[in-house]
Amino acid sequence: MHIDVLTLFPDMISGIFNSSILKKASDNDKFSYNLVNFRDYTENKHKKVDDYPYGGGAGMVLTPQPVFDAVEAVTKEKKTKPRVILMCPQGEPYNQKKAEELAGEDHLIFICGHYEGYDERIRENLVTDEISIGDYVLTGGELGAMVVIDSVVRLLPDVLGNKESAPEDSFSTGLLEHPHYTRPADFRGLTVPDVLMSGDHAKIEAWRKRESLKRTYERRKELLREQNLSDEDIKIVNEIKNKDK
Amino acid sequence: MHIDVLTLFPDMISGIFNSSILKKASDNDKFSYNLVNFRDYTENKHKKVDDYPYGGGAGMVLTPQPVFDAVEAVTKEKKTKPRVILMCPQGEPYNQKKAEELAGEDHLIFICGHYEGYDERIRENLVTDEISIGDYVLTGGELGAMVVIDSVVRLLPDVLGNKESAPEDSFSTGLLEHPHYTRPADFRGLTVPDVLMSGDHAKIEAWRKRESLKRTYERRKELLREQNLSDEDIKIVNEIKNKDK
Repeated sequence: MHIDVLTLFPDMISGIFNSSILKKASDNDKFSYNLVNFRDYTENKHKKVDDYPYGGGAGMVLTPQPVFDAVEAVTKEKKTKPRVILMCPQGEPYNQKKAEELAGEDHLIFICGHYEGYDERIRENLVTDEISIGDYVLTGGELGAMVVIDSVVRLLPDVLGNKESAPEDSFSTGLLEHPHYTRPADFRGLTVPDVLMSGDHAKIEAWRKRESLKRTYERRKELLREQNLSDEDIKIVNEIKNKDK
Repeated sequence: MHIDVLTLFPDMISGIFNSSILKKASDNDKFSYNLVNFRDYTENKHKKVDDYPYGGGAGMVLTPQPVFDAVEAVTKEKKTKPRVILMCPQGEPYNQKKAEELAGEDHLIFICGHYEGYDERIRENLVTDEISIGDYVLTGGELGAMVVIDSVVRLLPDVLGNKESAPEDSFSTGLLEHPHYTRPADFRGLTVPDVLMSGDHAKIEAWRKRESLKRTYERRKELLREQNLSDEDIKIVNEIKNKDK
Protein backbone atom coordinates (compact mmCIF):
# COMPACT_ATOMS: atom_id res chain seq x y z
CA MET A 1 0.00 0.00 0.00
CA HIS A 2 1.10 3.54 -0.76
CA ILE A 3 -0.31 6.54 1.11
CA ASP A 4 -0.11 10.20 0.05
CA VAL A 5 -1.12 12.88 2.52
CA LEU A 6 -1.86 16.28 0.97
CA THR A 7 -1.43 18.88 3.71
CA LEU A 8 -0.28 22.44 4.32
CA PHE A 9 1.34 21.25 7.59
CA PRO A 10 3.64 18.29 6.80
CA ASP A 11 5.75 18.97 9.93
CA MET A 12 2.68 18.48 12.07
CA ILE A 13 2.40 14.81 11.16
CA SER A 14 5.89 13.61 10.20
CA GLY A 15 6.57 12.67 13.85
CA ILE A 16 3.59 10.33 13.83
CA PHE A 17 4.91 8.45 10.79
CA ASN A 18 8.31 8.27 12.53
CA SER A 19 7.04 6.55 15.69
CA SER A 20 5.85 3.19 16.87
CA ILE A 21 3.97 0.87 14.50
CA LEU A 22 3.88 3.29 11.54
CA LYS A 23 7.66 3.67 11.60
CA LYS A 24 8.24 -0.06 11.97
CA ALA A 25 5.76 -0.84 9.17
CA SER A 26 7.29 1.65 6.72
CA ASP A 27 10.86 0.65 7.64
CA ASN A 28 9.86 -2.94 6.84
CA ASP A 29 8.20 -1.97 3.53
CA LYS A 30 4.71 -2.95 4.69
CA PHE A 31 3.57 0.38 3.26
CA SER A 32 5.14 3.54 1.86
CA TYR A 33 4.06 7.15 2.28
CA ASN A 34 4.65 10.65 1.03
CA LEU A 35 3.75 13.99 2.59
CA VAL A 36 2.77 16.46 -0.13
CA ASN A 37 2.45 20.15 0.61
CA PHE A 38 -0.14 21.12 -1.98
CA ARG A 39 0.90 24.75 -1.66
CA ASP A 40 3.81 23.68 -3.91
CA TYR A 41 1.26 23.07 -6.68
CA THR A 42 -0.50 26.41 -6.67
CA GLU A 43 -0.28 28.51 -9.83
CA ASN A 44 -1.11 31.60 -7.78
CA LYS A 45 1.86 33.96 -7.82
CA HIS A 46 1.46 34.67 -4.08
CA LYS A 47 1.32 30.91 -3.35
CA LYS A 48 -2.21 31.33 -2.05
CA VAL A 49 -4.30 28.16 -1.84
CA ASP A 50 -7.56 29.70 -0.61
CA ASP A 51 -9.86 32.57 -1.48
CA TYR A 52 -13.10 34.24 -0.34
CA PRO A 53 -16.35 32.31 -0.81
CA TYR A 54 -18.67 33.23 -3.68
CA GLY A 55 -21.89 34.59 -2.24
CA GLY A 56 -20.10 36.13 0.75
CA GLY A 57 -19.70 34.95 4.32
CA ALA A 58 -16.84 34.51 6.78
CA GLY A 59 -14.01 32.01 6.39
CA MET A 60 -11.89 31.02 3.43
CA VAL A 61 -12.34 28.25 0.86
CA LEU A 62 -9.64 26.03 -0.69
CA THR A 63 -9.41 26.67 -4.41
CA PRO A 64 -9.66 23.62 -6.67
CA GLN A 65 -6.52 24.14 -8.78
CA PRO A 66 -3.68 23.19 -6.36
CA VAL A 67 -5.65 20.24 -4.94
CA PHE A 68 -6.52 18.82 -8.39
CA ASP A 69 -2.94 19.28 -9.59
CA ALA A 70 -1.42 17.69 -6.49
CA VAL A 71 -3.72 14.65 -6.76
CA GLU A 72 -2.89 14.29 -10.45
CA ALA A 73 0.84 14.53 -9.72
CA VAL A 74 0.76 11.70 -7.19
CA THR A 75 -1.41 9.45 -9.36
CA LYS A 76 0.38 10.04 -12.68
CA GLU A 77 2.79 7.11 -12.57
CA LYS A 78 0.42 4.76 -10.74
CA LYS A 79 -1.28 1.84 -12.45
CA THR A 80 -3.91 1.32 -9.75
CA LYS A 81 -6.89 3.56 -9.13
CA PRO A 82 -6.52 5.41 -5.84
CA ARG A 83 -9.10 6.08 -3.14
CA VAL A 84 -9.09 9.87 -2.77
CA ILE A 85 -10.26 10.65 0.75
CA LEU A 86 -11.43 14.04 1.95
CA MET A 87 -11.31 14.54 5.72
CA CYS A 88 -14.32 16.69 6.68
CA PRO A 89 -17.13 17.02 9.26
CA GLN A 90 -19.71 16.34 6.54
CA GLY A 91 -18.17 12.95 5.74
CA GLU A 92 -19.30 9.43 6.46
CA PRO A 93 -18.74 8.58 10.16
CA TYR A 94 -15.59 6.46 10.38
CA ASN A 95 -15.67 2.99 11.93
CA GLN A 96 -13.75 -0.28 12.04
CA LYS A 97 -15.61 -1.70 9.05
CA LYS A 98 -14.39 1.21 6.89
CA ALA A 99 -10.84 0.66 8.22
CA GLU A 100 -11.02 -2.97 7.04
CA GLU A 101 -12.33 -1.87 3.64
CA LEU A 102 -9.54 0.69 3.15
CA ALA A 103 -6.91 -1.86 4.26
CA GLY A 104 -7.64 -3.77 1.04
CA GLU A 105 -6.63 -0.87 -1.23
CA ASP A 106 -3.32 -0.28 -3.05
CA HIS A 107 -3.22 3.50 -2.92
CA LEU A 108 -4.82 5.98 -0.51
CA ILE A 109 -4.68 9.75 -0.97
CA PHE A 110 -5.78 11.95 1.94
CA ILE A 111 -6.75 15.59 1.39
CA CYS A 112 -6.43 17.63 4.60
CA GLY A 113 -7.95 21.09 4.70
CA HIS A 114 -6.96 23.44 7.50
CA TYR A 115 -9.40 26.08 8.81
CA GLU A 116 -10.80 26.45 5.30
CA GLY A 117 -13.79 24.92 3.65
CA TYR A 118 -13.36 22.94 0.43
CA ASP A 119 -14.52 24.20 -2.96
CA GLU A 120 -17.43 21.92 -3.82
CA ARG A 121 -15.84 20.94 -7.15
CA ILE A 122 -13.12 19.08 -5.20
CA ARG A 123 -15.81 17.06 -3.44
CA GLU A 124 -17.82 16.34 -6.55
CA ASN A 125 -15.13 15.66 -9.14
CA LEU A 126 -11.97 14.52 -7.38
CA VAL A 127 -12.70 12.57 -4.21
CA THR A 128 -14.02 9.03 -3.84
CA ASP A 129 -14.68 9.12 -0.06
CA GLU A 130 -15.52 11.77 2.51
CA ILE A 131 -14.72 10.71 6.06
CA SER A 132 -15.41 12.24 9.46
CA ILE A 133 -13.74 10.67 12.51
CA GLY A 134 -16.39 12.05 14.90
CA ASP A 135 -18.85 14.83 15.73
CA TYR A 136 -16.39 17.38 17.05
CA VAL A 137 -14.67 20.37 15.43
CA LEU A 138 -10.94 20.11 14.66
CA THR A 139 -8.59 22.75 13.28
CA GLY A 140 -7.74 20.68 10.23
CA GLY A 141 -7.94 17.30 8.56
CA GLU A 142 -4.45 16.18 9.58
CA LEU A 143 -5.31 14.46 12.87
CA GLY A 144 -8.28 12.75 11.26
CA ALA A 145 -6.10 11.47 8.40
CA MET A 146 -3.56 10.11 10.88
CA VAL A 147 -6.31 8.38 12.86
CA VAL A 148 -7.50 6.67 9.67
CA ILE A 149 -3.94 5.80 8.60
CA ASP A 150 -3.03 4.34 12.01
CA SER A 151 -6.19 2.21 12.09
CA VAL A 152 -5.66 0.99 8.50
CA VAL A 153 -1.90 0.27 8.57
CA ARG A 154 -2.20 -1.88 11.71
CA LEU A 155 -4.55 -4.14 9.73
CA LEU A 156 -2.06 -4.73 6.89
CA PRO A 157 -0.48 -8.20 6.72
CA ASP A 158 2.46 -8.79 9.10
CA VAL A 159 2.36 -5.31 10.61
CA LEU A 160 1.36 -6.26 14.14
CA GLY A 161 3.21 -8.78 16.23
CA ASN A 162 1.40 -10.90 18.80
CA LYS A 163 2.12 -8.38 21.50
CA GLU A 164 0.34 -5.53 19.77
CA SER A 165 -2.53 -7.38 18.18
CA ALA A 166 -4.13 -8.85 21.28
CA PRO A 167 -6.18 -5.83 22.42
CA GLU A 168 -8.13 -5.99 19.18
CA ASP A 169 -9.66 -9.36 19.97
CA SER A 170 -12.19 -8.13 22.39
CA PHE A 171 -13.09 -5.04 20.36
CA SER A 172 -13.85 -7.27 17.41
CA THR A 173 -16.44 -9.16 19.48
CA GLY A 174 -18.47 -5.94 19.41
CA LEU A 175 -18.45 -5.72 23.21
CA LEU A 176 -16.35 -3.45 25.41
CA GLU A 177 -13.36 -5.18 26.91
CA HIS A 178 -13.39 -6.70 30.41
CA PRO A 179 -11.08 -5.27 33.12
CA HIS A 180 -7.41 -6.18 33.16
CA TYR A 181 -5.10 -6.56 36.15
CA THR A 182 -1.37 -7.13 36.36
CA ARG A 183 1.34 -7.09 39.02
CA PRO A 184 1.48 -6.22 41.87
CA ALA A 185 -1.39 -8.18 43.41
CA ASP A 186 -1.63 -5.46 46.06
CA PHE A 187 -0.94 -1.88 45.01
CA ARG A 188 -1.37 0.57 47.89
CA GLY A 189 -4.02 -1.68 49.37
CA LEU A 190 -5.87 -2.03 46.04
CA THR A 191 -6.12 -5.71 45.24
CA VAL A 192 -6.83 -7.97 42.29
CA PRO A 193 -10.14 -9.94 42.16
CA ASP A 194 -9.64 -13.41 43.67
CA VAL A 195 -11.02 -15.19 40.62
CA LEU A 196 -8.12 -13.99 38.46
CA MET A 197 -5.64 -15.55 40.93
CA SER A 198 -7.59 -18.82 41.17
CA GLY A 199 -6.01 -20.59 38.21
CA ASP A 200 -9.50 -21.87 37.29
CA HIS A 201 -9.64 -20.97 33.60
CA ALA A 202 -13.33 -21.72 33.08
CA LYS A 203 -14.22 -19.45 36.01
CA ILE A 204 -11.88 -16.73 34.71
CA GLU A 205 -13.47 -16.85 31.25
CA ALA A 206 -16.97 -16.67 32.76
CA TRP A 207 -15.96 -13.67 34.92
CA ARG A 208 -14.45 -11.87 31.91
CA LYS A 209 -17.51 -12.50 29.75
CA ARG A 210 -19.79 -11.19 32.48
CA GLU A 211 -17.66 -8.08 33.08
CA SER A 212 -17.52 -7.40 29.36
CA LEU A 213 -21.32 -7.62 29.06
CA LYS A 214 -21.73 -5.51 32.22
CA ARG A 215 -19.43 -2.76 31.01
CA THR A 216 -21.10 -2.69 27.61
CA TYR A 217 -24.54 -2.55 29.24
CA GLU A 218 -23.52 0.25 31.60
CA ARG A 219 -21.65 2.39 29.09
CA ARG A 220 -22.85 1.65 25.57
CA LYS A 221 -26.27 -0.08 25.65
CA GLU A 222 -26.66 0.55 21.91
CA LEU A 223 -23.77 -1.84 21.17
CA LEU A 224 -25.64 -4.70 22.85
CA ARG A 225 -28.60 -4.18 20.55
CA GLU A 226 -26.33 -4.64 17.53
CA GLN A 227 -25.08 -8.01 18.82
CA ASN A 228 -26.21 -11.54 18.21
CA LEU A 229 -26.15 -12.49 21.88
CA SER A 230 -26.37 -16.14 22.89
CA ASP A 231 -29.15 -17.27 25.23
CA GLU A 232 -26.57 -17.52 27.98
CA ASP A 233 -25.40 -13.92 27.31
CA ILE A 234 -28.98 -12.64 27.37
CA LYS A 235 -29.51 -14.36 30.73
CA ILE A 236 -26.40 -12.61 32.11
CA VAL A 237 -27.51 -9.21 30.78
CA ASN A 238 -30.93 -9.69 32.40
CA GLU A 239 -29.28 -10.49 35.73
CA ILE A 240 -27.22 -7.29 35.42
CA LYS A 241 -30.35 -5.29 34.60
CA ASN A 242 -32.20 -6.71 37.61
CA LYS A 243 -29.35 -5.81 39.95
CA ASP A 244 -29.63 -2.23 38.68
CA LYS A 245 -33.19 -1.94 39.97
CA MET B 1 -5.11 25.98 31.08
CA HIS B 2 -2.26 23.54 31.56
CA ILE B 3 -2.15 20.18 29.77
CA ASP B 4 0.02 17.18 30.67
CA VAL B 5 0.23 14.27 28.26
CA LEU B 6 1.54 11.03 29.76
CA THR B 7 2.89 8.92 26.91
CA LEU B 8 5.62 6.43 26.04
CA PHE B 9 5.97 8.18 22.64
CA PRO B 10 6.51 11.93 23.22
CA ASP B 11 8.26 12.31 19.83
CA MET B 12 5.13 11.08 18.12
CA ILE B 13 3.12 14.12 19.17
CA SER B 14 5.60 16.97 19.73
CA GLY B 15 5.24 18.01 16.07
CA ILE B 16 1.51 18.50 16.53
CA PHE B 17 2.04 20.88 19.44
CA ASN B 18 4.62 22.72 17.31
CA SER B 19 2.28 23.44 14.38
CA SER B 20 -0.60 25.66 13.49
CA ILE B 21 -3.11 26.77 16.17
CA LEU B 22 -1.58 24.75 19.02
CA LYS B 23 1.82 26.35 18.46
CA LYS B 24 0.36 29.85 18.19
CA ALA B 25 -1.78 29.35 21.27
CA SER B 26 1.08 28.07 23.42
CA ASP B 27 3.49 30.74 22.10
CA ASN B 28 0.90 33.33 23.15
CA ASP B 29 0.39 31.75 26.60
CA LYS B 30 -3.21 30.77 25.93
CA PHE B 31 -2.29 27.38 27.37
CA SER B 32 0.84 25.51 28.45
CA TYR B 33 1.72 21.85 28.06
CA ASN B 34 4.18 19.21 29.10
CA LEU B 35 4.93 15.82 27.55
CA VAL B 36 5.69 13.29 30.28
CA ASN B 37 7.23 9.92 29.46
CA PHE B 38 5.85 7.85 32.30
CA ARG B 39 8.56 5.26 31.75
CA ASP B 40 10.75 7.77 33.65
CA TYR B 41 8.64 7.07 36.75
CA THR B 42 8.85 3.30 36.82
CA GLU B 43 10.52 1.72 39.86
CA ASN B 44 11.12 -1.43 37.83
CA LYS B 45 14.84 -1.94 37.41
CA HIS B 46 14.41 -2.88 33.72
CA LYS B 47 12.29 0.25 33.14
CA LYS B 48 9.34 -1.97 32.28
CA VAL B 49 5.90 -0.32 32.46
CA ASP B 50 3.76 -3.34 31.59
CA ASP B 51 3.41 -6.95 32.63
CA TYR B 52 1.36 -10.08 31.85
CA PRO B 53 -2.34 -10.09 32.77
CA TYR B 54 -3.49 -11.96 35.88
CA GLY B 55 -5.71 -14.81 34.82
CA GLY B 56 -3.79 -15.31 31.57
CA GLY B 57 -4.48 -14.21 28.03
CA ALA B 58 -2.56 -12.47 25.25
CA GLY B 59 -1.41 -8.87 25.36
CA MET B 60 0.27 -6.80 28.05
CA VAL B 61 -1.22 -4.60 30.75
CA LEU B 62 0.14 -1.25 32.03
CA THR B 63 1.11 -1.57 35.69
CA PRO B 64 -0.38 0.99 38.06
CA GLN B 65 2.82 2.23 39.73
CA PRO B 66 4.44 4.41 37.01
CA VAL B 67 1.08 5.88 35.96
CA PHE B 68 0.04 6.78 39.53
CA ASP B 69 3.47 8.25 40.28
CA ALA B 70 3.55 10.31 37.06
CA VAL B 71 0.07 11.74 37.71
CA GLU B 72 1.06 12.59 41.28
CA ALA B 73 4.25 14.28 40.09
CA VAL B 74 2.42 16.60 37.68
CA THR B 75 -0.32 17.49 40.19
CA LYS B 76 1.93 18.00 43.24
CA GLU B 77 2.45 21.76 42.91
CA LYS B 78 -1.01 22.50 41.49
CA LYS B 79 -3.73 24.19 43.50
CA THR B 80 -6.57 23.20 41.17
CA LYS B 81 -8.02 19.72 40.86
CA PRO B 82 -7.15 18.19 37.48
CA ARG B 83 -9.32 16.21 35.10
CA VAL B 84 -7.42 12.96 34.59
CA ILE B 85 -8.45 11.57 31.23
CA LEU B 86 -7.87 8.01 30.07
CA MET B 87 -7.99 7.51 26.29
CA CYS B 88 -9.55 4.09 25.63
CA PRO B 89 -12.10 2.29 23.42
CA GLN B 90 -14.30 1.64 26.46
CA GLY B 91 -14.62 5.37 27.17
CA GLU B 92 -17.49 7.80 26.74
CA PRO B 93 -17.90 8.69 23.03
CA TYR B 94 -16.33 12.11 22.50
CA ASN B 95 -18.37 14.99 21.09
CA GLN B 96 -18.42 18.77 20.83
CA LYS B 97 -20.36 19.15 24.09
CA LYS B 98 -17.58 17.34 25.97
CA ALA B 99 -15.00 19.58 24.25
CA GLU B 100 -16.86 22.65 25.56
CA GLU B 101 -16.98 21.15 29.06
CA LEU B 102 -13.25 20.40 29.12
CA ALA B 103 -12.44 23.89 27.77
CA GLY B 104 -13.66 25.28 31.12
CA GLU B 105 -11.03 23.38 33.13
CA ASP B 106 -7.69 24.62 34.52
CA HIS B 107 -5.69 21.41 34.24
CA LEU B 108 -6.07 18.39 31.97
CA ILE B 109 -3.95 15.25 32.26
CA PHE B 110 -4.13 12.70 29.46
CA ILE B 111 -3.02 9.10 29.98
CA CYS B 112 -2.11 7.41 26.70
CA GLY B 113 -1.63 3.67 26.67
CA HIS B 114 0.04 2.04 23.70
CA TYR B 115 -0.84 -1.53 22.59
CA GLU B 116 -1.38 -2.43 26.24
CA GLY B 117 -4.51 -2.57 28.29
CA TYR B 118 -4.74 -0.54 31.51
CA ASP B 119 -4.67 -2.11 34.96
CA GLU B 120 -8.20 -1.62 36.26
CA ARG B 121 -6.94 0.13 39.40
CA ILE B 122 -5.81 3.06 37.18
CA ARG B 123 -9.36 3.36 35.86
CA GLU B 124 -11.07 3.06 39.22
CA ASN B 125 -8.80 5.10 41.46
CA LEU B 126 -6.94 7.66 39.37
CA VAL B 127 -8.93 8.84 36.37
CA THR B 128 -11.92 11.18 36.30
CA ASP B 129 -12.90 10.64 32.64
CA GLU B 130 -12.57 7.84 30.11
CA ILE B 131 -12.87 9.04 26.52
CA SER B 132 -13.12 7.26 23.17
CA ILE B 133 -12.89 9.36 19.99
CA GLY B 134 -14.73 6.76 17.92
CA ASP B 135 -15.49 3.08 17.30
CA TYR B 136 -12.25 2.09 15.61
CA VAL B 137 -9.06 0.46 16.88
CA LEU B 138 -5.93 2.62 17.19
CA THR B 139 -2.40 1.62 18.17
CA GLY B 140 -2.36 3.94 21.16
CA GLY B 141 -4.06 6.79 22.96
CA GLU B 142 -1.79 9.51 21.57
CA LEU B 143 -3.81 10.41 18.46
CA GLY B 144 -7.01 10.43 20.49
CA ALA B 145 -5.46 12.72 23.09
CA MET B 146 -4.31 15.11 20.35
CA VAL B 147 -7.78 15.12 18.80
CA VAL B 148 -9.27 16.09 22.16
CA ILE B 149 -6.56 18.69 22.82
CA ASP B 150 -6.97 20.31 19.38
CA SER B 151 -10.73 20.51 19.77
CA VAL B 152 -10.46 21.95 23.31
CA VAL B 153 -7.65 24.48 22.79
CA ARG B 154 -9.40 26.07 19.80
CA LEU B 155 -12.32 26.87 22.12
CA LEU B 156 -10.14 28.75 24.66
CA PRO B 157 -10.56 32.55 24.72
CA ASP B 158 -8.65 34.50 22.03
CA VAL B 159 -7.15 31.39 20.43
CA LEU B 160 -8.93 31.57 17.08
CA GLY B 161 -8.91 34.60 14.84
CA ASN B 162 -11.86 35.41 12.60
CA LYS B 163 -10.30 33.52 9.74
CA GLU B 164 -10.13 30.23 11.61
CA SER B 165 -13.33 30.41 13.60
CA ALA B 166 -15.82 30.75 10.79
CA PRO B 167 -16.17 27.08 9.82
CA GLU B 168 -17.50 26.33 13.30
CA ASP B 169 -20.61 28.43 12.82
CA SER B 170 -22.43 26.02 10.65
CA PHE B 171 -21.37 22.95 12.66
CA SER B 172 -22.78 24.57 15.78
CA THR B 173 -26.21 24.78 14.10
CA GLY B 174 -26.25 20.99 14.33
CA LEU B 175 -26.61 20.68 10.54
CA LEU B 176 -23.95 19.72 8.02
CA GLU B 177 -22.46 22.69 6.21
CA HIS B 178 -23.72 23.85 2.81
CA PRO B 179 -21.36 23.69 -0.22
CA HIS B 180 -18.71 26.38 -0.69
CA TYR B 181 -17.31 27.77 -3.93
CA THR B 182 -14.45 30.15 -4.61
CA ARG B 183 -12.48 31.44 -7.58
CA PRO B 184 -12.24 30.64 -10.43
CA ALA B 185 -15.90 30.78 -11.53
CA ASP B 186 -15.05 28.27 -14.24
CA PHE B 187 -12.48 25.58 -13.40
CA ARG B 188 -11.94 23.14 -16.26
CA GLY B 189 -15.54 23.68 -17.33
CA LEU B 190 -16.89 23.12 -13.80
CA THR B 191 -18.89 26.20 -12.85
CA VAL B 192 -20.28 27.88 -9.77
CA PRO B 193 -24.08 27.87 -9.15
CA ASP B 194 -25.63 31.05 -10.59
CA VAL B 195 -27.33 31.99 -7.32
CA LEU B 196 -23.97 32.52 -5.59
CA MET B 197 -22.97 35.05 -8.30
CA SER B 198 -26.33 36.86 -8.17
CA GLY B 199 -25.54 39.30 -5.39
CA ASP B 200 -29.04 38.63 -3.98
CA HIS B 201 -28.25 37.93 -0.34
CA ALA B 202 -31.70 36.69 0.66
CA LYS B 203 -31.64 34.19 -2.20
CA ILE B 204 -28.10 33.10 -1.30
CA GLU B 205 -29.09 32.52 2.33
CA ALA B 206 -32.15 30.51 1.28
CA TRP B 207 -30.03 28.39 -1.10
CA ARG B 208 -27.47 27.73 1.61
CA LYS B 209 -30.10 26.76 4.17
CA ARG B 210 -31.72 24.37 1.71
CA GLU B 211 -28.40 22.77 0.73
CA SER B 212 -27.45 22.38 4.39
CA LEU B 213 -30.76 20.65 5.17
CA LYS B 214 -30.44 18.54 2.03
CA ARG B 215 -26.92 17.38 2.83
CA THR B 216 -27.87 16.57 6.42
CA TYR B 217 -30.94 14.64 5.22
CA GLU B 218 -28.93 12.68 2.65
CA ARG B 219 -25.93 11.90 4.83
CA ARG B 220 -26.90 12.02 8.50
CA LYS B 221 -30.68 11.77 8.91
CA GLU B 222 -30.23 11.15 12.65
CA LEU B 223 -28.89 14.70 13.11
CA LEU B 224 -32.16 16.16 11.76
CA ARG B 225 -34.14 14.26 14.39
CA GLU B 226 -32.06 15.94 17.14
CA GLN B 227 -32.88 19.43 15.82
CA ASN B 228 -35.57 21.90 16.69
CA LEU B 229 -36.45 22.62 13.08
CA SER B 230 -38.65 25.61 12.24
CA ASP B 231 -41.89 25.08 10.32
CA GLU B 232 -40.15 26.52 7.28
CA ASP B 233 -37.24 24.05 7.65
CA ILE B 234 -39.65 21.13 8.00
CA LYS B 235 -41.38 22.23 4.80
CA ILE B 236 -38.02 22.26 2.98
CA VAL B 237 -37.07 18.81 4.33
CA ASN B 238 -40.43 17.42 3.18
CA GLU B 239 -39.86 18.85 -0.31
CA ILE B 240 -36.44 17.17 -0.38
CA LYS B 241 -37.97 13.86 0.76
CA ASN B 242 -40.65 14.04 -1.94
CA LYS B 243 -38.07 14.65 -4.66
CA ASP B 244 -36.32 11.48 -3.49
CA LYS B 245 -39.34 9.37 -4.35
